[in-house]
Amino acid sequence: MRTFFCSFVVRFADTDAFGIVYYPNIFRYFDHAVETLLRASPYDYIGNLRATGAGFPALEAGGAFSAPIFAGDEVTIETDVEDVRTRAFRVRHRIVRDGQVLATGYEVRIHARKPPGASAIEGLPLPGDLRDYLTTDDIALG
Amino acid sequence: MRTFFCSFVVRFADTDAFGIVYYPNIFRYFDHAVETLLRASPYDYIGNLRATGAGFPALEAGGAFSAPIFAGDEVTIETDVEDVRTRAFRVRHRIVRDGQVLATGYEVRIHARKPPGASAIEGLPLPGDLRDYLTTDDIALG
Amino acid sequence: MRTFFCSFVVRFADTDAFGIVYYPNIFRYFDHAVETLLRASPYDYIGNLRATGAGFPALEAGGAFSAPIFAGDEVTIETDVEDVRTRAFRVRHRIVRDGQVLATGYEVRIHARKPPGASAIEGLPLPGDLRDYLTTDDIALG
Amino acid sequence: MRTFFCSFVVRFADTDAFGIVYYPNIFRYFDHAVETLLRASPYDYIGNLRATGAGFPALEAGGAFSAPIFAGDEVTIETDVEDVRTRAFRVRHRIVRDGQVLATGYEVRIHARKPPGASAIEGLPLPGDLRDYLTTDDIALG
Repeated sequence: MRTFFCSFVVRFADTDAFGIVYYPNIFRYFDHAVETLLRASPYDYIGNLRATGAGFPALEAGGAFSAPIFAGDEVTIETDVEDVRTRAFRVRHRIVRDGQVLATGYEVRIHARKPPGASAIEGLPLPGDLRDYLTTDDIALG
Repeated sequence: MRTFFCSFVVRFADTDAFGIVYYPNIFRYFDHAVETLLRASPYDYIGNLRATGAGFPALEAGGAFSAPIFAGDEVTIETDVEDVRTRAFRVRHRIVRDGQVLATGYEVRIHARKPPGASAIEGLPLPGDLRDYLTTDDIALG
Repeated sequence: MRTFFCSFVVRFADTDAFGIVYYPNIFRYFDHAVETLLRASPYDYIGNLRATGAGFPALEAGGAFSAPIFAGDEVTIETDVEDVRTRAFRVRHRIVRDGQVLATGYEVRIHARKPPGASAIEGLPLPGDLRDYLTTDDIALG
Repeated sequence: MRTFFCSFVVRFADTDAFGIVYYPNIFRYFDHAVETLLRASPYDYIGNLRATGAGFPALEAGGAFSAPIFAGDEVTIETDVEDVRTRAFRVRHRIVRDGQVLATGYEVRIHARKPPGASAIEGLPLPGDLRDYLTTDDIALG
């Protein structure tokens, strides 16, 4: 299964009055890691999003926050693909700064689109090129 | 243990290009429910936040998103206090629209403050009036 | 022209490490005021958003921030409709706490929809019932 | 005066149900450009933020949004320093994609800190190394 690394600098915009990253923004970071992985894959994520509205909403997500994250921190998210099903995949994330794990978590993403005006989303099979990318035993950098 | 109900209208601001609420914003809703509960309790949450910087950051959180949430939806979050420890408490949330459960989740919150310049947060015992409020078998509306 | 009042409690979620509301969130407040006004009007804002994708994106916005806004502040946004054109309208906002003006600003909103897959938005005439609501010399509460 | 260029890929997280970037997030982009400029300058922005709580909140901001911005867009923000005063500076921004201007705007930022528990922010003189960086006739990339 694929392992993916994505690095960035934590922005002041993501902090709260406690002086640390507001925890729902940590789920934005998880989403950022998955979006970066999708863009790095051979699957045309942005093209399909624009042409058909297909994307990868989350069915589930969880996180544990073991140390505060500050504005200016240079962090890396290590994302491991854990499971790939017909329409969905599961990833595990670790946010690391200087070797220290600051947060861990997971997401289950489904390939889906929402037809205009519909009140439900419609699951779609994972595209073959994305499936191959996710299930390959390899490492990539975002 | 306390059960707390908090109702609001979902804002366009919380949606994404999929046309539904972007999932990290569902954790903002969970946080909104807890903040509303804290404000409804006899504990002076805002006064203490301002005077000493003490607050209730999350140690853990998780959610499952079973149905899309749309701008304009009138939703209620039902929050059940599940466990109250020396410094932390755990709540379970259900977001409901017209009797349909749209999302479920949980949070573990710790009473803590971050001294200015410190790189770690410092756990504090739960205030007695908040503990009593959380552990009372009663229902309240936010 | 209509004057509209919208009151709410400032959330911890909207603050930053400076301990005050992060300024882009003040534009979210302006947007909240306009969305509340739209929902209070006879025009079916949510129904049309869902059925046709029509909405009111901003063409312009500006703000001046004269005093910090804190979590827990009970604020009112006073919104004055200033100008109503064929497809767009202009509003002026004041955010007030206990009689003190904390921020002022304005927005120009256009009635528009974005056809799926299109790379531009398409301006639409303002609906008659919304035009009447905006141009009436009256006060309303959100 | 300094001109600064900052490039990034627009995230799905920043879009709304209209399928385009939600306009308050364009002010987050302006803030991102200024924060990137501050980090590129010889002034120790992050170190001072952590040690003394000093930062650069906005006094004013404005924007005009001439074309929709989409998830996946590769954009550049061109930031021109326009005016540098004792405690504050003013910048002008242009967000560009493939040579097309999508949005323009400006911000006035003050050097300030908020003493813990205070209800007002306290203006500070601009640090000399930052002043020199801002007023130098040069171009830099973030």
